[in-house]
Amino acid sequence: MSEMDQLANQTGWLAPHDLEAARERLPIVYVDAVPVRLDEEGRVEALGLLLRAMPDGTISRAVVTGRILYGETVRAALLRHLAKDLGPLAQPQLPPQPSPFTVVEYFPDAAKSGFVDPRQHAVSLAYIVPVLGECMPAPETLEFSWLTPEEAASPEVSREMTGGHDRLVRMALAHVGCLP
Amino acid sequence: MSEMDQLANQTGWLAPHDLEAARERLPIVYVDAVPVRLDEEGRVEALGLLLRAMPDGTISRAVVTGRILYGETVRAALLRHLAKDLGPLAQPQLPPQPSPFTVVEYFPDAAKSGFVDPRQHAVSLAYIVPVLGECMPAPETLEFSWLTPEEAASPEVSREMTGGHDRLVRMALAHVGCLP
Amino acid sequence: MSEMDQLANQTGWLAPHDLEAARERLPIVYVDAVPVRLDEEGRVEALGLLLRAMPDGTISRAVVTGRILYGETVRAALLRHLAKDLGPLAQPQLPPQPSPFTVVEYFPDAAKSGFVDPRQHAVSLAYIVPVLGECMPAPETLEFSWLTPEEAASPEVSREMTGGHDRLVRMALAHVGCLP
Amino acid sequence: MSEMDQLANQTGWLAPHDLEAARERLPIVYVDAVPVRLDEEGRVEALGLLLRAMPDGTISRAVVTGRILYGETVRAALLRHLAKDLGPLAQPQLPPQPSPFTVVEYFPDAAKSGFVDPRQHAVSLAYIVPVLGECMPAPETLEFSWLTPEEAASPEVSREMTGGHDRLVRMALAHVGCLP
Repeated sequence: MSEMDQLANQTGWLAPHDLEAARERLPIVYVDAVPVRLDEEGRVEALGLLLRAMPDGTISRAVVTGRILYGETVRAALLRHLAKDLGPLAQPQLPPQPSPFTVVEYFPDAAKSGFVDPRQHAVSLAYIVPVLGECMPAPETLEFSWLTPEEAASPEVSREMTGGHDRLVRMALAHVGCLP
Repeated sequence: MSEMDQLANQTGWLAPHDLEAARERLPIVYVDAVPVRLDEEGRVEALGLLLRAMPDGTISRAVVTGRILYGETVRAALLRHLAKDLGPLAQPQLPPQPSPFTVVEYFPDAAKSGFVDPRQHAVSLAYIVPVLGECMPAPETLEFSWLTPEEAASPEVSREMTGGHDRLVRMALAHVGCLP
Repeated sequence: MSEMDQLANQTGWLAPHDLEAARERLPIVYVDAVPVRLDEEGRVEALGLLLRAMPDGTISRAVVTGRILYGETVRAALLRHLAKDLGPLAQPQLPPQPSPFTVVEYFPDAAKSGFVDPRQHAVSLAYIVPVLGECMPAPETLEFSWLTPEEAASPEVSREMTGGHDRLVRMALAHVGCLP
Repeated sequence: MSEMDQLANQTGWLAPHDLEAARERLPIVYVDAVPVRLDEEGRVEALGLLLRAMPDGTISRAVVTGRILYGETVRAALLRHLAKDLGPLAQPQLPPQPSPFTVVEYFPDAAKSGFVDPRQHAVSLAYIVPVLGECMPAPETLEFSWLTPEEAASPEVSREMTGGHDRLVRMALAHVGCLP
């Protein structure tokens, strides 16, 4: 038993080895967070995208994403992943309502929903999260950029996203009334 | 022609006299804003209610409400009414999405929808608006109070609201997952 | 006083002449309805578009749209316009929730929101409405077509829409998870 | 290894024994469906509640609920649980949008969210589902009843629900504008 597995046993979380097994048998609950900057009237003026290595091995622009741990609330999971990906000074403002703006179903098989995760079947609650502070992305993130709605929905930027994140970005822009 | 009517003519807005006439013939577009305080994880911890004279002559607790002017965007109308009712330091955070959490239809006839405005048929877009700053209500507001979700939904506080605002408050609490 | 104006006086509705005047002074409440066909699991498989003369004189594809009358509920207005545009056998299924999927603000000035109505400032509640029956559009409608999500979002079809209806269609497709 | 466990191994689903283990380590994805009857204008006139044995051993009124299987879409899971609980003739009409009206977080610890499932941490996507046909509940369901919104939100009926389902019912009624 590895040290990580022992720790996991004590904390009640899944060890990497067990998570592997569960991923082949159970849908995993995820959160996706689309960081946005708002103008004074609450309109989206920019959308934040990470550039990083994806589960399928590609380098891709992506929104903030990650799984919900056992015993963790949706809100706590969102804040944990936002802090990890945008740094401790980002000041994300979670929306008061618990309902996501959409639900994304990731499957290993691309034909199933158009959203792909080669590792697992994930059901992801997707939220739009206004960010007030400064973003200082984690070392494993190659880049973090604020894009205008026009840029974020452009064919050029869309081509830099894999797994369906380009569609998720357009769905987020549509939800806030900013899809060009 | 009164001075107000002349001014209205020049600005293209409705004079009080014409507004009276229009109110008997056209539904009027309104916005309702439910001010809330959020905790660090975005959960509603308090809901703000005004105490003031209502169109039907009663003194009632109420949320922020008012009409959209000709040429005014929904966002501008929301900010104008929030500033008027909560003061210039309230720092209301309008949500990024344009869709209201509910639509309230006010009719002079109480039987029609349960929401009543004796002056007019109003169609109101209702939003939940987190407030970061200090609230300093206008002089014509008798009181402004922050209530916990439990207090806001209680029979005691509900009885202090007319026109259906008690139902609107419960609908807002339900939308943010805080209806007791 | 015209016959229409006299009738309007008696019914309490706005005569054409008064409506003209009100349109220059007050935002008018509208409903937009995007007709869709669903598959057995509730997924959108087709989106219905009318082809007709628009307020700006162009021939354009468009969704169902029209104003709410004084004293009329949002639901009654939706059903009236759907019946007028899709015929009496369409069997539209209004959603149970009163909240629209988006709010569209039409202004005479295109710069203001990107949604244009040269006649008026209209605030429109937009709904997605599944249709179960047969659509037999009104004589003034030149054509009614069911399009796949891919077709409806294509540049070709988008170019056939004016006033911003192409954006509204893409926002509707995004809301139902079918924006390509 | 039991027969069920062997079958599960072949199909890739979790055997009862493994599910038990996973439930102690991972949040499980659920769907909750609130069956409703609509009037001709799409307004909720009745809400359907099951009466059955709950995970905590109580007999309780409840909405339709169940987990999403590996590889199963949210829509397929909803239809499977609706068919199991309401019978094959219910004709449930899934909404076109993938976003749930709320997300319910069930924890073994009641203090965490007010929604309780003693067996597991479940994250449940909650939908309102209009039903057109006849409901013939499964044998293990003791009763299925259509209640008016007033009845469904009443203290009497609320007391007959455990695990937080009474709050979920009120949240559903609020979402459709029918919370008394």
